[in-house]
Amino acid sequence: MNAPALNPSPSKLAMVPFVSVDHMMKIVNSIGIETVLSELANYVEEDFVRWEQFDKTPRVAAHSKEGVIELMPTSDGEVYGFKYVNGHPKNMSEGLQTVTAFGMLADVSSGYPVLLSEMTILTALRTAATSALAAKYLAPTDAHCMAMIGNGAQCEFQALAFKAILGIDTVRLYDIDPAATKKAASNLAGKGLKLVTCGSSAEAVEGAQIVTTCTADKQYATILTDNMVGKGIHINAIGGDCPGKTELHRDILLRSDVFVEYAPQTRIEGEIQQLPDDYDVTELWKVISGRVEGRRNADQITLFDSVGFAIEDFSALRYVRDQLKRTGHYVDLDMVADPNEPRDLFGMIMRATKN
Amino acid sequence: MNAPALNPSPSKLAMVPFVSVDHMMKIVNSIGIETVLSELANYVEEDFVRWEQFDKTPRVAAHSKEGVIELMPTSDGEVYGFKYVNGHPKNMSEGLQTVTAFGMLADVSSGYPVLLSEMTILTALRTAATSALAAKYLAPTDAHCMAMIGNGAQCEFQALAFKAILGIDTVRLYDIDPAATKKAASNLAGKGLKLVTCGSSAEAVEGAQIVTTCTADKQYATILTDNMVGKGIHINAIGGDCPGKTELHRDILLRSDVFVEYAPQTRIEGEIQQLPDDYDVTELWKVISGRVEGRRNADQITLFDSVGFAIEDFSALRYVRDQLKRTGHYVDLDMVADPNEPRDLFGMIMRATKN
Repeated sequence: MNAPALNPSPSKLAMVPFVSVDHMMKIVNSIGIETVLSELANYVEEDFVRWEQFDKTPRVAAHSKEGVIELMPTSDGEVYGFKYVNGHPKNMSEGLQTVTAFGMLADVSSGYPVLLSEMTILTALRTAATSALAAKYLAPTDAHCMAMIGNGAQCEFQALAFKAILGIDTVRLYDIDPAATKKAASNLAGKGLKLVTCGSSAEAVEGAQIVTTCTADKQYATILTDNMVGKGIHINAIGGDCPGKTELHRDILLRSDVFVEYAPQTRIEGEIQQLPDDYDVTELWKVISGRVEGRRNADQITLFDSVGFAIEDFSALRYVRDQLKRTGHYVDLDMVADPNEPRDLFGMIMRATKN
Repeated sequence: MNAPALNPSPSKLAMVPFVSVDHMMKIVNSIGIETVLSELANYVEEDFVRWEQFDKTPRVAAHSKEGVIELMPTSDGEVYGFKYVNGHPKNMSEGLQTVTAFGMLADVSSGYPVLLSEMTILTALRTAATSALAAKYLAPTDAHCMAMIGNGAQCEFQALAFKAILGIDTVRLYDIDPAATKKAASNLAGKGLKLVTCGSSAEAVEGAQIVTTCTADKQYATILTDNMVGKGIHINAIGGDCPGKTELHRDILLRSDVFVEYAPQTRIEGEIQQLPDDYDVTELWKVISGRVEGRRNADQITLFDSVGFAIEDFSALRYVRDQLKRTGHYVDLDMVADPNEPRDLFGMIMRATKN
């Protein structure tokens, strides 16, 4: 293998495994997407159980008129991880991804990076895996039908995560753009799901025990109105994930038991930005770790107000790191200068002229 | 070129130029290290002149008992940059670098990354370039001799930056470890500098118009005592750069006019952590942009209390980006998922199985 990015004679520590977009697709396809989603949900679950070990730093956001660029760091004390992610709603109209991301893990004890990975695909996977994990604790036990409102880039991942982790057999698709629904239906054909294309949100929620909302407009929108939400359902609200962007009518929130990833962040970015700052919500990790009950009865409306949190990215990167040996889909990058004598960085550069 | 990290048919936007350690060494050696240091100083100078355009986010630090991992983001409104950097003083005893770093630039309007680069070498270069730039405004005009106390990884870069940018002709070397001095003297031999190996800090400062301190212990140390500092000299204090780590006796600070990069950060990390929070200091950009006088007379003691700031890394990354075409030393990485239809991320993954 001709590796153009290599130091002439770098030590093992100087090399950082890199998972490109192509590698990530190969990892997903070689393992199988439903298996990946299930395994990822297990990693997120493990990390939510040990939630208190993690450093919870708020994301560091750089806002501009076109969008936002964020760094999302966290650490469990042994491994440090961060994700770079942008959110530019106008990108789609220019043929670009609204959200792109990459991330890394480093060894806390030395500070040396140990993994660099694309995270555009990985974020899509972890978002879906986390949604299905939350639903495992919050959705009605007999849930088998999901309404999927918003059929953009996240849609198929959600559908397959709920199939793999909850046993959902029917997905009712709706998007304001019929082309998006057509794309999702085409991609999901033959995956073992009954697909129903719907003409409205109201039609999509009919008979669904789970309603996932995942639309992309950066504005206060009302994808679901109060009359569309019957008792006993679980709402998985994905699209309301930044200040000024919500999907649900406020009255729905007031009728629901609201579960969040990390309350200080969700109060700014999630659906609950519509509610007072002290409104009672439950952090999902408390349910997963058995400290608080999730769904208590069949009539309760549960709402997972998901905005995405750094620990989920950490879990996802940890999962990818564990797939390197399993799949071999990565390449080593020469990212860390590693002179034989640490104080001789200059000498290393000068000697490189002789190579 | 067989590029193993490539997507089968990625678009141009999906590719991010990556400058590895090997590439960085080739860039430095092909352009020449003194030219690189001078040009880098020009980039830092340009960005210090337009300082007010930049987003000044404090660095985001994850502290552990062994060290610190930091993210240092900034933006000028058009380009966003950040650096990942660790500081682990105990690393050197394990044959590792105390500081390793990498960084990136992204396009603010789309959020897409446009450069990923190693920054261990680049940080060493920009630190030295910034030191010499500060001295251009603060050191006595006849400065030709520099004391270099601490002969670790940063030493040779400092010496050559001061030669290239200020015309220093003599460097007086001292380190508590004679092996470090020997290494520095050997590396700097034949570079056009008169090198004087000294047996103490006191000996090193004799006859020097500029004193650079750059030692690595993470503790309150006193590398320079008050009696060693004569009138008219410029002190370039590099090593005191985190809480609990200083190099200068407090009395020296009180006799000096203190110049800093960004006061809120330097009050926490720099030499001035020894002084009250409201102690009068001058931000260097104000001198460089002509708003405040730097050196006012020949007797004044000037002190650049340098801790490193995100804008310097931004300047350095901007410089590297401009060397890609000039040198060709980089490789494209397939870091950003770029489906033909932005909403069809899932379809892109599934279609990859057919490649």
